[in-house]
Amino acid sequence: MTIDEEAIKLHREWNGKISTVAKAKVKDRHDLAVAYTPGVAAPCRIIAENKAEVYNYTLKANTVAVVSDGSAVLGLGNIGPEAAMPVMEGKCVLFKEFGDVNAFPICLSTQDPDEIVAAVKAIAPTFGGINLEDISAPRCFEIEERLKKELDIPVFHDDQHGTAIVVLAGIINGLKVVGKKKEDCKVVVNGAGSAGVAITRLLLRYGFKNITMCDKSGILSKDSKDLNWMQEKMMEVTNLSGASGTLADALKGADIFVGVSAPGIVSQDMVRSMNKDSILFAMANPTPEIMPDLAKEAGARVVGTGRSDFPNQVNNVVAFPGIFKGALLGHAKEITEEMKLAAANAIASLVSDADLSDENILPEAFDPKVAEVVSKAVMDHIK
Amino acid sequence: MTIDEEAIKLHREWNGKISTVAKAKVKDRHDLAVAYTPGVAAPCRIIAENKAEVYNYTLKANTVAVVSDGSAVLGLGNIGPEAAMPVMEGKCVLFKEFGDVNAFPICLSTQDPDEIVAAVKAIAPTFGGINLEDISAPRCFEIEERLKKELDIPVFHDDQHGTAIVVLAGIINGLKVVGKKKEDCKVVVNGAGSAGVAITRLLLRYGFKNITMCDKSGILSKDSKDLNWMQEKMMEVTNLSGASGTLADALKGADIFVGVSAPGIVSQDMVRSMNKDSILFAMANPTPEIMPDLAKEAGARVVGTGRSDFPNQVNNVVAFPGIFKGALLGHAKEITEEMKLAAANAIASLVSDADLSDENILPEAFDPKVAEVVSKAVMDHIK
Repeated sequence: MTIDEEAIKLHREWNGKISTVAKAKVKDRHDLAVAYTPGVAAPCRIIAENKAEVYNYTLKANTVAVVSDGSAVLGLGNIGPEAAMPVMEGKCVLFKEFGDVNAFPICLSTQDPDEIVAAVKAIAPTFGGINLEDISAPRCFEIEERLKKELDIPVFHDDQHGTAIVVLAGIINGLKVVGKKKEDCKVVVNGAGSAGVAITRLLLRYGFKNITMCDKSGILSKDSKDLNWMQEKMMEVTNLSGASGTLADALKGADIFVGVSAPGIVSQDMVRSMNKDSILFAMANPTPEIMPDLAKEAGARVVGTGRSDFPNQVNNVVAFPGIFKGALLGHAKEITEEMKLAAANAIASLVSDADLSDENILPEAFDPKVAEVVSKAVMDHIK
Repeated sequence: MTIDEEAIKLHREWNGKISTVAKAKVKDRHDLAVAYTPGVAAPCRIIAENKAEVYNYTLKANTVAVVSDGSAVLGLGNIGPEAAMPVMEGKCVLFKEFGDVNAFPICLSTQDPDEIVAAVKAIAPTFGGINLEDISAPRCFEIEERLKKELDIPVFHDDQHGTAIVVLAGIINGLKVVGKKKEDCKVVVNGAGSAGVAITRLLLRYGFKNITMCDKSGILSKDSKDLNWMQEKMMEVTNLSGASGTLADALKGADIFVGVSAPGIVSQDMVRSMNKDSILFAMANPTPEIMPDLAKEAGARVVGTGRSDFPNQVNNVVAFPGIFKGALLGHAKEITEEMKLAAANAIASLVSDADLSDENILPEAFDPKVAEVVSKAVMDHIK
């Protein structure tokens, strides 16, 4: 049976990859009186007097909504909310299994940013956090920014920040392997959607100075046409030399390539044109921008992909469960840039110097320590 | 420890009376590939091609949202969405424990009917049904009607219809006990909010002809002031003789009293003024309109209350879990009047003629047969 066949068979059997379970059992009238009427009125009254008590008496304390409008699901595109459900349920499984965080999918029937913001605001009292997922750019930027401003619970678009945090963790360790300093590196990020923008912003925040973004039309520059508002904004902090040209032009003399773009668009010649000891994250899925063996052959020193069948898999699952676990435990009102940097450093720290190598820059996704260490790092940075 | 003290202690310990559980376990890379990427894309594609397949691959098949705006919670009133959470979680526990239906609380930050309708429509792709709860009248009528029209999944306001169904079940059996026919009975419903209106409508649909509604100001009549639009509408089908006066006036010569109103407002003299073999449902909580022993002493034959410490408890838990169980199993698009009547008849049928008595007109809430029988009755009436 292929993976697809097995996935179809099992999804039919599961008929929902998560379900709810009652922690309060109701076996007799006394149980009913305590968990429901009349007893339930007592915690209700306590919360009515002081809203913050909701964290002490309800599932808001440890529950995240995984919210999508189905507009940019995996590599499948705009498949709508119903078809997005298996992915969102999968995400909820990962939250539970890796972070012991309750998560519930919320797939929305609207793709209008105003309506999405209104819907998420409306349901927010129930949840301790909002994980946005698979919402297309540039709508995702506006939606996240507005929700962050208007809600007092953490809002986190994982396609942006989860990816950025894991890439930064990999780069932190990659630089150790190759012995370069962030200030000296030329970075090229290919793909100017949600992940590309978030990666660029987090790398800048971490201290990289020289980043060039590219998309299908080549280097993002003053001459680029049809930039969206976020890409325009990114022009203020990237490509400071004002270069223009193709991805191949950008890669000449680069130290780090980060691809969140399309299969096979990086050639061996392009890798050869990069600086010595180059680091490549080729994360197009399932086929990377360049296959790791080809990149290595052309001189790349450290290569990561999104795939589990090659070394250095960039997998968000080492980030988001621990990040929300920490944010919820600490009753964080938002997930700040400091928390993201702390999470990246924590993930990087999970690979000991002794274990660090070209082919081992990121921790194993199934290492149970990961979510613990990440959540602690996040909690340490809650104000 | 009092029930209140125990409820507070246990709610703190539970910190959420329901949690999520992963049916799909993720112990290794193969599990991850099947439950998440890349395998999950296969069921996504199937649903993208045919939206109805969402019922075969996701939790929509067996999951209900318990939606409230916190505007009319228990007897506590408008305590807001956070303070309503323990009640909605309790409802979710009952759905799971009694009907094996997954339910998730959604407490809304808005009390504006347009915004509530928009929010519920927005989240609807995720759920197989919507259980509205503790939304104040008359807003609840408009919200439910609009959602029923605009959604293709069942929408059911339990405070209205759950209560109405159980009251009708009790009355069906009460009439058997006292040997009266519905066509001959004068019914008085006291309380013209969500439950009172729904009870009256279902009794009319069942075949009662002579129903008088009362509220704080007495009999609802053409002379009543400040009626809301729903109460105005009820005037077209109730109080056909055009009576006016007090509740005491209404009860003279009545056969059935249904109270969803206030403690102690029915006197023994009022009961004495009713017809012989009267049936009283005094459901004000926790103190009924008249205590059962006083009602009996004054000549009432059958008395039901909302309390578990007296005979004939009217408890919605015999209705809603089975109703949604049946609706979900049968992929019902709505819960029709026929399904409600069928549910009431099914609940009534659970008390055998041999067991039927003044003090035993409704099935035991903890009887595991109840949800089975109710769900089957509902499924038999799905078009």
